[in-house]
Amino acid sequence: MAPVAINLGVKLHVLAEADDVSATTAASFTVGDYKEYDTLAAFAESVDVVTFDHEHVPTEHLQRLEAAGVQLAPGPGALVYAQDKLAMRQKMAELKLPQPDWRAVSSVEELVAAADEIGFPVVLKTPRGGYDGKGVWVLDSAEHARQTHTWFDGTHQALLVEAKVDFASELSAQIARSTTGETITYPVIETIQTDGVADIVKAPAPNLETATAHAARAAADTIATAVGVTGMLAVELFHTPDSEAGFMINELAMRPHNTGHWTQDGAVTSQFEQHLRAVLGLPLGSTDPVVPYTVMKNYLGAENEDLYGAFPLAMRKYPHAKVHAYGKSVRPGRKIGHVNVLAIDGNLDAALDAAIDAANIIRHGTTDY
Amino acid sequence: MAPVAINLGVKLHVLAEADDVSATTAASFTVGDYKEYDTLAAFAESVDVVTFDHEHVPTEHLQRLEAAGVQLAPGPGALVYAQDKLAMRQKMAELKLPQPDWRAVSSVEELVAAADEIGFPVVLKTPRGGYDGKGVWVLDSAEHARQTHTWFDGTHQALLVEAKVDFASELSAQIARSTTGETITYPVIETIQTDGVADIVKAPAPNLETATAHAARAAADTIATAVGVTGMLAVELFHTPDSEAGFMINELAMRPHNTGHWTQDGAVTSQFEQHLRAVLGLPLGSTDPVVPYTVMKNYLGAENEDLYGAFPLAMRKYPHAKVHAYGKSVRPGRKIGHVNVLAIDGNLDAALDAAIDAANIIRHGTTDY
Repeated sequence: MAPVAINLGVKLHVLAEADDVSATTAASFTVGDYKEYDTLAAFAESVDVVTFDHEHVPTEHLQRLEAAGVQLAPGPGALVYAQDKLAMRQKMAELKLPQPDWRAVSSVEELVAAADEIGFPVVLKTPRGGYDGKGVWVLDSAEHARQTHTWFDGTHQALLVEAKVDFASELSAQIARSTTGETITYPVIETIQTDGVADIVKAPAPNLETATAHAARAAADTIATAVGVTGMLAVELFHTPDSEAGFMINELAMRPHNTGHWTQDGAVTSQFEQHLRAVLGLPLGSTDPVVPYTVMKNYLGAENEDLYGAFPLAMRKYPHAKVHAYGKSVRPGRKIGHVNVLAIDGNLDAALDAAIDAANIIRHGTTDY
Repeated sequence: MAPVAINLGVKLHVLAEADDVSATTAASFTVGDYKEYDTLAAFAESVDVVTFDHEHVPTEHLQRLEAAGVQLAPGPGALVYAQDKLAMRQKMAELKLPQPDWRAVSSVEELVAAADEIGFPVVLKTPRGGYDGKGVWVLDSAEHARQTHTWFDGTHQALLVEAKVDFASELSAQIARSTTGETITYPVIETIQTDGVADIVKAPAPNLETATAHAARAAADTIATAVGVTGMLAVELFHTPDSEAGFMINELAMRPHNTGHWTQDGAVTSQFEQHLRAVLGLPLGSTDPVVPYTVMKNYLGAENEDLYGAFPLAMRKYPHAKVHAYGKSVRPGRKIGHVNVLAIDGNLDAALDAAIDAANIIRHGTTDY
């Protein structure tokens, strides 16, 4: 968010967990633990509006801050649906939005019974704290399900079990909602997940039925308005062409999201600028794509620790590639940057090939990876 | 340059004239006077490469820094042609590039004689220190020329007098040249100047003869390579369709330039990213426009001092407008921001109207200005 804040003349101040994390290179900062109420309260005193780049701040702290008059965007009443997957499933059911069959289960016995009703395979999830594939377990059989008894250790009141959806692809419908209640949706995109991480995005989703795209955008609007989110909301979807709606809701994220990084180069208003506009109550910007297709490819940490040293190789081969570095240290499997490629001429396949190759060159530090 | 530096993972450190100037809001900084050699030398010690956002650092200081091994981009051997208009005219003559008839004059008598040869009206310019219309005087007659005797006060060895060109429009041809010698040109744009300030840019220049556009880009390449510039070079041109080349060279700027702000939203690689890539020796990025036309409109300081308060009015009326704020204090006539509007649908006139209206709304703080 720092680059767009500079362009808009908005001052960012970050609560960072240490003085060497990436956010500290781009904005003024205070070091502190987001799990401590006093730290949060002191930080909130120093700013006009508090927003988030992850969903792990304890809900009870946010409720207390809100009661104390701190302007939180989004507020805990909305954020809980991105923090707690059981609360989210319950809310989607209330809103009558399409989603996989699901149950809340508090014991292995309940799990096995629920999975029998739903039909194997099922997916068991911790309601809180999981991300990028962590806290998720696919279960193929009752025998397999019984092995999860260690998960029922009292950390969570209940776990979420849901049908494993046989999807055609994964989609994401992003929307921004302002403090004023104004909303605007982005084009629905297709995301290819690898090991639970959004690895590739094609924007807009190619070959998506128009009716499904419209319905997904409408569902995002329904959710954003119903839960009262402020800022960016990503509704992660399964594309299920044979189901009634054509999609099912997977998860929610209430912040600029990996599946929206394409907007930095491919849309009139990036998700980061849009988030700032929304949380500040500024009018929202156009979400129109500027070119027919944009491809985003993440690069993860690997054996090459000198990412910057590999930039020239990728940049020389792909003058069209937009390389984004997060300023994070390299750890295997960690998301440390992404590449956007614009298909100005509409050639999606060429842009896809370029983005994948450029990201691999950076990741591996060589064109012969 | 700060936003793109963040995206590229490049650390900026700024020598600022005071701790409340706009650059200090976007990067780490040292306060100091760029006219003092010791200040420059100490600053240079703290960084890997030194570049510039204006051309007023004394040439002799830069020569001394270069001799001491400081990596300057551009170096003084190139920068002098952006600092000294007489040196520039001499160099363009050596390169046999089209330019107005000109003379160096050291007295009023020489001026009147030169102007008689060139033919009135002529333009008298101080070779150094002028910008945005300052240090420029249009002279209509010998009588008028004699009134300039106070300019010959010994501050400059000589002044530049040149023909006042009867141009069809003003153009700018930007090019980047890397420390490696690699060059890449941007599409030639049309700029509408008001009171000596680049007020509006249409990118690419509409209705420009293809041969003239090619020749202008080739001239930019010839200059960049001949003078050995590193970073962005803007070649400001008069469009003279009846002349042999179709254009004449007006001035040079060696830095990201007002006439290139459209690239922030309208080109694959912005001039700011390109400048950083060039001065760091990274491969240069594509200069392709992402949409058919982009319009840039500056907004200057006026009676409305609360620019931020006026943003919502402009943003609500024009969701497509990209508002860029420089973080500068408001002074009448000062360039404090600009608006880019992308003509995704190719409608240049609509984009022009939107950009002009949005900038005026911000400037005046009302939609009824």
